[in-house]
Amino acid sequence: MKRPSPPTVPSGLELTRRRLLASGITATTLGMMNLRLPSWLSAADPMPTADQLVAGKDRRLLVHNASTAGFEIETPLDLLRDELLTSADKLFVRNNQQPSWAATIEPAKPGPWSLEITGLLEFPKTIALEQLKELPQIEHEVVLQCSGNGRALFSKAAPAKGAPWYHGAMGNVRFKGVSLQAVFEKFDVRPHADVRFITAEGADSPQKPDAADFEHSLPFDDTLSRAILAFEMNGKALPAVHGGPLRLVTPGYYGTMHVKWLTRLRLEARESVNHHQVKRYRTPREPLKPGSTFDYGFHNSDPNWRMRIKSVILGPTPNAMVEGGKVTARGVAWNDGTSLIDAVEVSMDEGVTWRRAELQRGGRYGWQHWQLPLQLPAGTHTLISRAVDTLGNTQPLDGSIDWNPAGYGWHGADRVTFAVKS
Amino acid sequence: MKRPSPPTVPSGLELTRRRLLASGITATTLGMMNLRLPSWLSAADPMPTADQLVAGKDRRLLVHNASTAGFEIETPLDLLRDELLTSADKLFVRNNQQPSWAATIEPAKPGPWSLEITGLLEFPKTIALEQLKELPQIEHEVVLQCSGNGRALFSKAAPAKGAPWYHGAMGNVRFKGVSLQAVFEKFDVRPHADVRFITAEGADSPQKPDAADFEHSLPFDDTLSRAILAFEMNGKALPAVHGGPLRLVTPGYYGTMHVKWLTRLRLEARESVNHHQVKRYRTPREPLKPGSTFDYGFHNSDPNWRMRIKSVILGPTPNAMVEGGKVTARGVAWNDGTSLIDAVEVSMDEGVTWRRAELQRGGRYGWQHWQLPLQLPAGTHTLISRAVDTLGNTQPLDGSIDWNPAGYGWHGADRVTFAVKS
Repeated sequence: MKRPSPPTVPSGLELTRRRLLASGITATTLGMMNLRLPSWLSAADPMPTADQLVAGKDRRLLVHNASTAGFEIETPLDLLRDELLTSADKLFVRNNQQPSWAATIEPAKPGPWSLEITGLLEFPKTIALEQLKELPQIEHEVVLQCSGNGRALFSKAAPAKGAPWYHGAMGNVRFKGVSLQAVFEKFDVRPHADVRFITAEGADSPQKPDAADFEHSLPFDDTLSRAILAFEMNGKALPAVHGGPLRLVTPGYYGTMHVKWLTRLRLEARESVNHHQVKRYRTPREPLKPGSTFDYGFHNSDPNWRMRIKSVILGPTPNAMVEGGKVTARGVAWNDGTSLIDAVEVSMDEGVTWRRAELQRGGRYGWQHWQLPLQLPAGTHTLISRAVDTLGNTQPLDGSIDWNPAGYGWHGADRVTFAVKS
Repeated sequence: MKRPSPPTVPSGLELTRRRLLASGITATTLGMMNLRLPSWLSAADPMPTADQLVAGKDRRLLVHNASTAGFEIETPLDLLRDELLTSADKLFVRNNQQPSWAATIEPAKPGPWSLEITGLLEFPKTIALEQLKELPQIEHEVVLQCSGNGRALFSKAAPAKGAPWYHGAMGNVRFKGVSLQAVFEKFDVRPHADVRFITAEGADSPQKPDAADFEHSLPFDDTLSRAILAFEMNGKALPAVHGGPLRLVTPGYYGTMHVKWLTRLRLEARESVNHHQVKRYRTPREPLKPGSTFDYGFHNSDPNWRMRIKSVILGPTPNAMVEGGKVTARGVAWNDGTSLIDAVEVSMDEGVTWRRAELQRGGRYGWQHWQLPLQLPAGTHTLISRAVDTLGNTQPLDGSIDWNPAGYGWHGADRVTFAVKS
């Protein structure tokens, strides 16, 4: 097992700034978008780099947070744009609780691994990882997205608590594993008729003694029909930092629900009341005035389960200076996989008129790539994109309508301002 | 850690018979009481002895079952009678799932130990055994009794499934530990308002792949007010075979509910549907015709929680030949500790007249010793004892009124036939 070397601290703020510049997102860029800067930009102790935190990660990733509890590391847009499948060294990281052996993109596990299926069933099961791997394997291309992705954009309306992700807390990967349904059939898992939720726990532990152990409840029927128990990503053993050796992947759901280092599934009649389920990773049911406080509960909020429909512009990048003449706008779009993306529409006039982009369909749960050639005069332009699916879901023109204190679920129409050279 | 030597098989049936004779319970004795003989008495391969199965156990204990899943070992009555506190080498054993390291009366554990408190609470807790031991410790004298104790007596009415225990699947020990209530206060365990049950799991695993992992649900309020997390027995570290290093002890409850090798407590709104809770260790709510079948469910049966009131005659022993003149009848009585034992009554005329025995009160949850001097003529006599508590609970004269397929909860008035020499 490859062990990561302990993180070392770079020599100073200047190094951090240089790293930021190298990452393609500049302080100026952020400032022009009226985004809040990562707090450590002005801190005395700059962050270590991604490759120092997680063995094998690309040094150009943006480190938001490197607490002992886990890391928050973002992929700059230009790195996302270069790949159809986001490679392990470039994929974002958001771990609430990270086992000590998991700070690497290599596979790693501390010993024999098994999955316990317990809760409302007469005969709970314990299944060794090796037994799971003997089942027929399936593969899904899946958008992996932190539910806080785009949080920085909410902060234009009012500050939202958490790492100020731009669009780079996402990626598009292929997970391979076994379907949960097949596991239930093969191992004769017979859920009690009252089962409504499936709660997933990992081998990770809270770092602070008073913290709640991370876990998540998912809706039972939907999870049973969609989820896979994944042990490979992009054709290789699942990286430890991304949840290897075993991760629950429910395609179409936000990343937080894809519980990493999976060791236990509980079949339950009700949603977990664990702090991470009932006070975190939820969004209010009703619109809030930006800046409001909110007391999260089962009665007034929903878990961050299915992803909202979304498009992201990958090019031009914000504040780019592009050559005149033909400019190709391009990006990706996706939803929760319940329906197909019907169109991605682009506006160059603040939403007065829209044109359909060309759509290159991918897997049901993966990115749909889109592009649109434009003839643009010299000067500054603002490009807006929005996706529409066959159920009629689309993106609000002003995403801050969904403002919530934790900044979850940003899915506003994307907008990028850039300049065409004269 | 002291490792038990692997069991070796005695040389033949004759050895087994001699061991039975030495234990004070003879085949003739059992036959005279119309009890079913242990099936292995006529088996080709005799049982190993208790000391061969569990390092440190008294060789005179009676082995009913020595499957790999766990042992069923009974204490002969004369060994129980000799001690106020049943010593570790003489205490009965009934383990459904026994960890490989636990076949010893010495303390043993495979590594660091901690207790997880999870389920319906926002902040689940994990508490190291060392942290538990720092709390103020309390001690309880407790009757430890298998809920199948006395099953052989049911079989006079109709066969009951399980080991044919006479009265020796019980003992009286002192458990020391910390109160569950204190643990909740100290570690700020805040159960959700809906919590009604506490489900306990141990470090043991099922031996067969399709078997359900052993666990038990107890009623929350009662358990929280009574239970201790025990790590000592009779002033010494809790023997591994009896659940060390940590056991949930809820005084007044049947032994099966004192979950051994305790690693997890789940706070839940409903009773576990685990096989061991819903199909085993329950008694029907309504009387059954002996020999009936019964389909156990939550709606028609209760878990073996609080012990029924009971008295047992420890002397004279069945079929004893005693000297003439003054004979002292003696024994023990107990209930679930909710009320005091008010009296133990003795009848020498098949229940027509009763005399109060002298009662020597012990702890609320321990054995109450009783004795009654009798002047008896030569000949055969039948002694009957019954306990009465201050709530008016008593024992049925014919215990088979409670017959149930698994032979749980025998608490008939005890009867012993013996002879006075001329």
